[in-house]
Amino acid sequence: MPANPLARIRVVLVSASHPGNIGAVARGMANMGLADLRLVAPLRHPTAEATARAAGAPVLEEAVVHADLAGAIAPCSLVVAATARRRAARWPVMTPRSAAAALAAHAMGGGEAAVVFGPEQSGLSNADLNAAHALIHIPVNPDFASVNLAGAALLVAYELRLAVCGAGEPAALAPSPAAEPPPATAEQVRGFHLHLEAVMRDSGFLRHKQPDALLRKIHLLFQRARLTAEEINILRGILSAVEKKGANHHPE
Amino acid sequence: MPANPLARIRVVLVSASHPGNIGAVARGMANMGLADLRLVAPLRHPTAEATARAAGAPVLEEAVVHADLAGAIAPCSLVVAATARRRAARWPVMTPRSAAAALAAHAMGGGEAAVVFGPEQSGLSNADLNAAHALIHIPVNPDFASVNLAGAALLVAYELRLAVCGAGEPAALAPSPAAEPPPATAEQVRGFHLHLEAVMRDSGFLRHKQPDALLRKIHLLFQRARLTAEEINILRGILSAVEKKGANHHPE
Repeated sequence: MPANPLARIRVVLVSASHPGNIGAVARGMANMGLADLRLVAPLRHPTAEATARAAGAPVLEEAVVHADLAGAIAPCSLVVAATARRRAARWPVMTPRSAAAALAAHAMGGGEAAVVFGPEQSGLSNADLNAAHALIHIPVNPDFASVNLAGAALLVAYELRLAVCGAGEPAALAPSPAAEPPPATAEQVRGFHLHLEAVMRDSGFLRHKQPDALLRKIHLLFQRARLTAEEINILRGILSAVEKKGANHHPE
Repeated sequence: MPANPLARIRVVLVSASHPGNIGAVARGMANMGLADLRLVAPLRHPTAEATARAAGAPVLEEAVVHADLAGAIAPCSLVVAATARRRAARWPVMTPRSAAAALAAHAMGGGEAAVVFGPEQSGLSNADLNAAHALIHIPVNPDFASVNLAGAALLVAYELRLAVCGAGEPAALAPSPAAEPPPATAEQVRGFHLHLEAVMRDSGFLRHKQPDALLRKIHLLFQRARLTAEEINILRGILSAVEKKGANHHPE
């Protein structure tokens, strides 16, 4: 198994007409850890516009230009083509997620794979589609179905990264234990609630209500917050200030 | 359940500086069936560049401009913020997929929700992050982590569409309306914090401390608790009672 399966999955742009899109595709690929961009007969390349939109992604500089699709996908044993339009049912149609799973499995098994995108206006020709083993159809609002080329490439690259690297959900993103201030002890929490209750009684608030139900609701809301010791100190500081102000005054 | 939960999820761009990005975000939203775009203090709007990049998406024409973030999220009871940088571990960090599941469940339960994106260069300020209940972190290649604003919005919109319309099971995640009391809106939360701040100043508590750091800590602890409208009523009732007691006394 190769160290990085993403290195075995190339992105192929056929006859891209907007240089900005080429740069934006390179940026999105770099974001997701893809590195191999192939440009088939680009209208203009290289351009300053593509460089600007690539935002420094080395993927753009390393992109390889080919005269035709056959050259761009020569070593690939799995080719999927992104297409906006519905096509005759000659090809299996996959979601980005299911296609990413298939591509990742293929690359993990040591194979080379390609994701092919057609020209912005017309999409891939039937001749080019013949090279594909399956189509990717991005689920979209049928009333506004035209997805920008760079956006479509980013979505597929994102699903590829998830398929290869996982959701990135766990430990790495969780708050580091060192950074978390310690939660307050039950005793500290109880001291705070007694203090708050005293202020509520003293202010007259508790007199006019159902005290038990109210106190329980307040207890639950602070319980949800999982107060830290520092937060309890702040809250009790406020309560003490309020009490002191009351004590400094005389009733009329 | 509303006919279309996506209609209850707004996208908020704070101080977007590139008009092209605004248009591209509108296009991506339309692709995925999102319709409610809010622009907070955009550098330039409307522009021909945004119109061109929107490719006819009505989302752009219908975008609402706000002076500040508070106005843009006023009716929302769930706010998630996309951020590229690591932040202090005070907010739960979610993937686009898990955030989309939470947002979809919230919208299916009848709540309003917002996904907030910051300025291209700097990201969201800490003050704006205070309004968020959670952060979205897009899993990216750590060596090239800067995702284009329009790309980030498209990824989140794509996951939202899958969560709402896909074969997923978001309906099962929806809170049963009877069991869950409705969370407070951002506007209600803001009103509570202004009230609390007034009491803190009036009692003299705020004078002796670093007010900004303190207020931020208090804000975050209540943000974690996800206050309901009823709880805010109770807390403001206590604040009013404390204020009234102070007003009934004369200083020595």
